[in-house]
Amino acid sequence: MIRVNENYAKLASSYLFSTIAKKVAEFSGKNPDASIIRLGIGDVTLPLAGACLTAFHEGVDEMGREETFRGYGPEQGYDFLREAIAQNDFAVRGAEIPAGDIFVSDGAKCDTGNFQELFAPDVKIAVPDPVYPVYVDTNVMAGRTGRFNQDRYEGLVYLDSTEENGFVPRPPEEKVDLIYLCFPNNPTGAAATREQLTEWVDYARSSKALILFDAAYEAFIRDPELPHSIYEIPGSKEVAVEFRSFSKTAGFTGVRCAFAVIPRQCVIYDALGKAVPLQGLWNRRHTTKFNGVSYPVQKAAAAVYSPEGKKQIREIIDYYLGNAKIIREKLAALGFSCAGGENSPYIWVKTGGDSWEFFDALLEKAQVVTTPGSGFGHCGNGYIRISAFNNREKVVEAMERIAKVKL
Amino acid sequence: MIRVNENYAKLASSYLFSTIAKKVAEFSGKNPDASIIRLGIGDVTLPLAGACLTAFHEGVDEMGREETFRGYGPEQGYDFLREAIAQNDFAVRGAEIPAGDIFVSDGAKCDTGNFQELFAPDVKIAVPDPVYPVYVDTNVMAGRTGRFNQDRYEGLVYLDSTEENGFVPRPPEEKVDLIYLCFPNNPTGAAATREQLTEWVDYARSSKALILFDAAYEAFIRDPELPHSIYEIPGSKEVAVEFRSFSKTAGFTGVRCAFAVIPRQCVIYDALGKAVPLQGLWNRRHTTKFNGVSYPVQKAAAAVYSPEGKKQIREIIDYYLGNAKIIREKLAALGFSCAGGENSPYIWVKTGGDSWEFFDALLEKAQVVTTPGSGFGHCGNGYIRISAFNNREKVVEAMERIAKVKL
Repeated sequence: MIRVNENYAKLASSYLFSTIAKKVAEFSGKNPDASIIRLGIGDVTLPLAGACLTAFHEGVDEMGREETFRGYGPEQGYDFLREAIAQNDFAVRGAEIPAGDIFVSDGAKCDTGNFQELFAPDVKIAVPDPVYPVYVDTNVMAGRTGRFNQDRYEGLVYLDSTEENGFVPRPPEEKVDLIYLCFPNNPTGAAATREQLTEWVDYARSSKALILFDAAYEAFIRDPELPHSIYEIPGSKEVAVEFRSFSKTAGFTGVRCAFAVIPRQCVIYDALGKAVPLQGLWNRRHTTKFNGVSYPVQKAAAAVYSPEGKKQIREIIDYYLGNAKIIREKLAALGFSCAGGENSPYIWVKTGGDSWEFFDALLEKAQVVTTPGSGFGHCGNGYIRISAFNNREKVVEAMERIAKVKL
Repeated sequence: MIRVNENYAKLASSYLFSTIAKKVAEFSGKNPDASIIRLGIGDVTLPLAGACLTAFHEGVDEMGREETFRGYGPEQGYDFLREAIAQNDFAVRGAEIPAGDIFVSDGAKCDTGNFQELFAPDVKIAVPDPVYPVYVDTNVMAGRTGRFNQDRYEGLVYLDSTEENGFVPRPPEEKVDLIYLCFPNNPTGAAATREQLTEWVDYARSSKALILFDAAYEAFIRDPELPHSIYEIPGSKEVAVEFRSFSKTAGFTGVRCAFAVIPRQCVIYDALGKAVPLQGLWNRRHTTKFNGVSYPVQKAAAAVYSPEGKKQIREIIDYYLGNAKIIREKLAALGFSCAGGENSPYIWVKTGGDSWEFFDALLEKAQVVTTPGSGFGHCGNGYIRISAFNNREKVVEAMERIAKVKL
């Protein structure tokens, strides 16, 4: 008899975005003339940069001629893309990462979800709260947690991200083996300083722990003091993997390209305490279960690093950051305490009370859709996340509407 | 201390294609003027069909305009593609599969590799021998096998595919829970008849087992009596998942698009023997760890089903099948016993003796690269796999060279 992986039954149904969609649909049904403005889901709205489009078309053209056609590519990605990443994302920031340490993939969601496969079933895991649900759910599926009980899975260590710590948790007192960090953070928008990341790297080194560092939003960092990569922190290469994505950097949410960095120095340990290079393990996983990213997509991604591409991408992100500034300033003027929105497309708004009640009030009174913070975990209650991914006119109008209503 | 998934240490290093590459490189080094013809790896060589190119470009153009730009798509794939698949791959063959049962992905390798996550750690697994290594390796990584011992992993049931059974194994005497089947087969090229598949479906139904049916090469079937899909077999929807791919059908190895079919009727069982719908489990896995296929790629894939696309695709496959016919006939004329090559791009050649010795002889005497059958498992020894994916001129020349040398 073919039996199920019983861990799936532990998964608390994640109805966050489907519940939002349902509420919005209900509201629209009752108010067919309402003009709803969506600042909920974290999806980009501006079209691809011209440099990426040109390269994308060129890649498609190459697939149409026998002499330039490409079949299976290297699972790890084409050298032209890995080298562009190594140079432009790392070398220029003083974080030397050879191209061979970079593994191109079709998404940071896939990479952060798949990476846990490399570890023993009983490693102790720390996750932020609020948290991007993929870190948690994939470990639940793999059997690394107990039951879901009072907003949390038994067996996980939750790192409270609160107003008190500026939404950047410090290492826990207890020993953990695997740590998920995300900066600039989804959902809070908080960015970690060099000192804060150094404390984490030191903790990981002293505990023989591993940090999985999700930097999908690094392109939104504008503060020159803030690190973009964990590899800007000395000693990090032995204890940290970094995940990056073209999704938010270059509007690739519908195009699909990302990458993970696994430094050759990074090790984990076998049952006898002997060090095992992590890169070889990921390479085995990646080549066995993945067949590389679409060639024209890799061409489009490499164009992000061309001179025109860099300029166009920066303009697009500046546009979203302009939206974020408007949202943050307008809400502050209304008396709300906000985090994020400065080096991040997300604004984390303290609403007090129940997140869903505030969500409902905004939808009904201002026809603005946001995301209830409680959907991201226990510490998210009393907050909503507002996304800056939308048109300027709609963002301005949403803020005007919010200013007019009593919440 | 962060500890490794110890199952990775059980993996027998799969040096097949890297060993081939090394041997070819060595030979080239010693014989710089040799003109090597590669009939080894199963990768397509002809450019994309015109209909796919046009649609691919249109998809890219849509991503360049704000009004047609698409961000995150449905993880399961766009309806336009799922509906085209349902109609053209299933309904027309009398196998009614609703679009909602189809999950679009970036590769059948990924799907066949990931699917095992849904099952309990101790299910009993049967795999063909010779076998596409992904079925085995992904279960080794998940801890469902013992050690590698004398060409095989302890704990797996190997289904010998031999000359005696026409390379189509029958269900085993013992009970197994999960069965990997692949027809037309990689590497043997054998196709299963309706009667043979019926026997497997009956076995699965009576044993409450599940069949994972890999039909990545179905487009090569020309014999009108042969089923293309396992869903042409009555009763199969409750006990079978099917994997398909655009890789070999439409030359998408470098473009990346595939799909899995999980009928809503298909169930597996919990520890108490209660039926659990498999589709919901895969949907949870797919939406948690995957973010959908690139939109322009899905547009290109859907064009496979347009009238021009169908015609162009058929011409491309006919070309490869023409190559296969030449290979098969020439080798038969030389006295070799061959399987495959009629409803498959692969020809499985009985060489006797050691596969690698025959590989070496072909490389040295005829400068033709093949794949040693032993690389696919114990029962592959004494065989080589020849691929029909190459230009006609090269295939003809390769056969002329082989005819001239003493092997």
